[in-house]
Amino acid sequence: MKNITLLGATGSIGLQTLDVIEAHPDQFRLFAISFGENVEKAIPIIKRFKPEWIVVKNNAVKNKLTSVLNGNYHIISGLEALEEISVHPKTDVLVNAVMGSVGLEATLAAIEHRKQIAIANKETLVTAGHLVMEKADKYNVNLLPIDSEHSAIFQALNGESSNQIKKIILTASGGSFRDKSRDELQNVTVRDALNHPNWSMGSKITIDSATMMNKGLEVIEAHWLFQVPYSKIEVIQHQESIIHSMVEYIDHSVIAQLGTPDMRVPIQYALTYPERINLPKSESLDLVSISKLHFKEMDFNRFPCLKFAFDAGEIGGTMPTVMNAANEVAVDLFLKGKIKFLEIEQIIESLMNNHQVVANPDLQTIQSVDTETRIKAAGFKREF
Amino acid sequence: MKNITLLGATGSIGLQTLDVIEAHPDQFRLFAISFGENVEKAIPIIKRFKPEWIVVKNNAVKNKLTSVLNGNYHIISGLEALEEISVHPKTDVLVNAVMGSVGLEATLAAIEHRKQIAIANKETLVTAGHLVMEKADKYNVNLLPIDSEHSAIFQALNGESSNQIKKIILTASGGSFRDKSRDELQNVTVRDALNHPNWSMGSKITIDSATMMNKGLEVIEAHWLFQVPYSKIEVIQHQESIIHSMVEYIDHSVIAQLGTPDMRVPIQYALTYPERINLPKSESLDLVSISKLHFKEMDFNRFPCLKFAFDAGEIGGTMPTVMNAANEVAVDLFLKGKIKFLEIEQIIESLMNNHQVVANPDLQTIQSVDTETRIKAAGFKREF
Repeated sequence: MKNITLLGATGSIGLQTLDVIEAHPDQFRLFAISFGENVEKAIPIIKRFKPEWIVVKNNAVKNKLTSVLNGNYHIISGLEALEEISVHPKTDVLVNAVMGSVGLEATLAAIEHRKQIAIANKETLVTAGHLVMEKADKYNVNLLPIDSEHSAIFQALNGESSNQIKKIILTASGGSFRDKSRDELQNVTVRDALNHPNWSMGSKITIDSATMMNKGLEVIEAHWLFQVPYSKIEVIQHQESIIHSMVEYIDHSVIAQLGTPDMRVPIQYALTYPERINLPKSESLDLVSISKLHFKEMDFNRFPCLKFAFDAGEIGGTMPTVMNAANEVAVDLFLKGKIKFLEIEQIIESLMNNHQVVANPDLQTIQSVDTETRIKAAGFKREF
Repeated sequence: MKNITLLGATGSIGLQTLDVIEAHPDQFRLFAISFGENVEKAIPIIKRFKPEWIVVKNNAVKNKLTSVLNGNYHIISGLEALEEISVHPKTDVLVNAVMGSVGLEATLAAIEHRKQIAIANKETLVTAGHLVMEKADKYNVNLLPIDSEHSAIFQALNGESSNQIKKIILTASGGSFRDKSRDELQNVTVRDALNHPNWSMGSKITIDSATMMNKGLEVIEAHWLFQVPYSKIEVIQHQESIIHSMVEYIDHSVIAQLGTPDMRVPIQYALTYPERINLPKSESLDLVSISKLHFKEMDFNRFPCLKFAFDAGEIGGTMPTVMNAANEVAVDLFLKGKIKFLEIEQIIESLMNNHQVVANPDLQTIQSVDTETRIKAAGFKREF
């Protein structure tokens, strides 16, 4: 029986992680959860899974939750509380599925405590990959990716020597606007953008798929997780999202992981690794019904955010932090109807162009650059 | 430095194995070869690689070879000589690439001597899989498959537990007649049949691809090599031969091995396993250029030989031997212009229908059933 601590329980990955936990009461127990402010969504989770510990954003949320919950729960709040449950002696597996950069310190702390860490939080590796991997190396901790692409690569690397990698090939569905030209993107709406062809995901990541920033963040994550240079990472468009990603080895043999688009497969694999167990209610891949798989070159001119990510990754230092923070704010502005779709990339590009890179930044520097960038990005609308 | 003993040096797999050996003079040395009668093809190989031992079919070939060769070679002949070089103390890796059932005893002997065995010889497993695998288990020897499909499965299983396999999915190009109806097959010629769309192979296996018997033999091989029941083996048509085969696990994750159609990749992998090394002159897979991969259901009515193989495998005992021997003779008759294409399957079906199965046969029984079937099959033409 593994005790799971789930950061970000009310998000899309969080809910699917709960599905996996619920499917295997003999293997997993939800020990602790965190969520931000969504008490309504959290209550049924808490009632169903009865986690010992609950971490919320702040005291206001804590008070609200306490007033409606009966039962013997430890309810705590704030960033330090996140760390506390992450490194709790009873935590066997930490699932980091929070959004944004709040999961970073909890992850670093969990590494020091040699927890099994399943990571769905992109920002942790994008902004502080050098710090996270240095620590993971030092404590000899495997970071188990939950993202379907990184899980695919992780699975394709199973049993292989990573020094025999020739190339990592990430696949990209192309997002909700893959068939639109740059011109046609001028006036797309939030509703259009949220209509992803293959995956059911949160709104931030669905927009990131449409701009291709999601794939860009994944490129940077792959660089850190699998310790390969950017020159050995390639992105190709694969509209069906059936081949989740691939590794080409030095003998030109390519190993790929395939499946229906179901996030519970990589989530469960991260929880059961190196074993596999049945996954109830999931479906077998039926290539005969699918009939065709398509592949296309990724066009950096069509998807400049992907180019930004390769550039930010190569430049390194605080540049990925700027790119990520600018993107988070810009996507939020777009979702709130305050900017147009193509202004997302304008904001990112402008902030990246004006940033003085700090090489090999520590956590504090990353956090101050992050905050500074968010402030600049939030104020950006007025300048257009 | 690994000493390679190559059985079947002048065949298609043999020649490609020599390519791999030549590409890595620092890693491999051709210690011994065997071939049947093709002295013309063998001479340049012997001159280039200078193997210590040479095994030929019979004394006539031996005399012919001795008369033209200068140098210090041990030339021996016959089936026992095959065994002798296979178990020679200097043999590190045995590559069994002979055609037909002559490789069987050499393989069994090499297992007893715990050699690393790379196996391209289908008949060994098809006719005597129960004996070979029992011995391989007993001596704890890995049989490394050279066939692209089985190598793909072997690679997809790397690092995984075989008890977590849900299904093995073999891909089939469909062969040279994949777009023809049954009616259109009535009068196809040998030349038509030898024109395989993807792979450059020997003529026997190219005909077997057109009848789908090749895939049928692979199904039986996969059953033995990976110890999975026939109910867990599926064949799908994949015309591009890019995904060489796949394994679906119990969590519905599918691992596939892909690559350009180049037999040297699986050959080299069997020689270097578990490591991988560069393969000069081979090409990276370019999915963007290929652009589409197609998948179709396999139709047992269109390809009855595939059905025969599943049936023969399920029935077991001497039935696969009958199917294989009948097929070998029938293909030979077709290649010599003595029967029509569709008569290949008629011969196989008729001989299978009239066979009294012997369960769990020993080597001698297999050999006598094999001989008996070949005699019956060879006489078949007169009865049409």
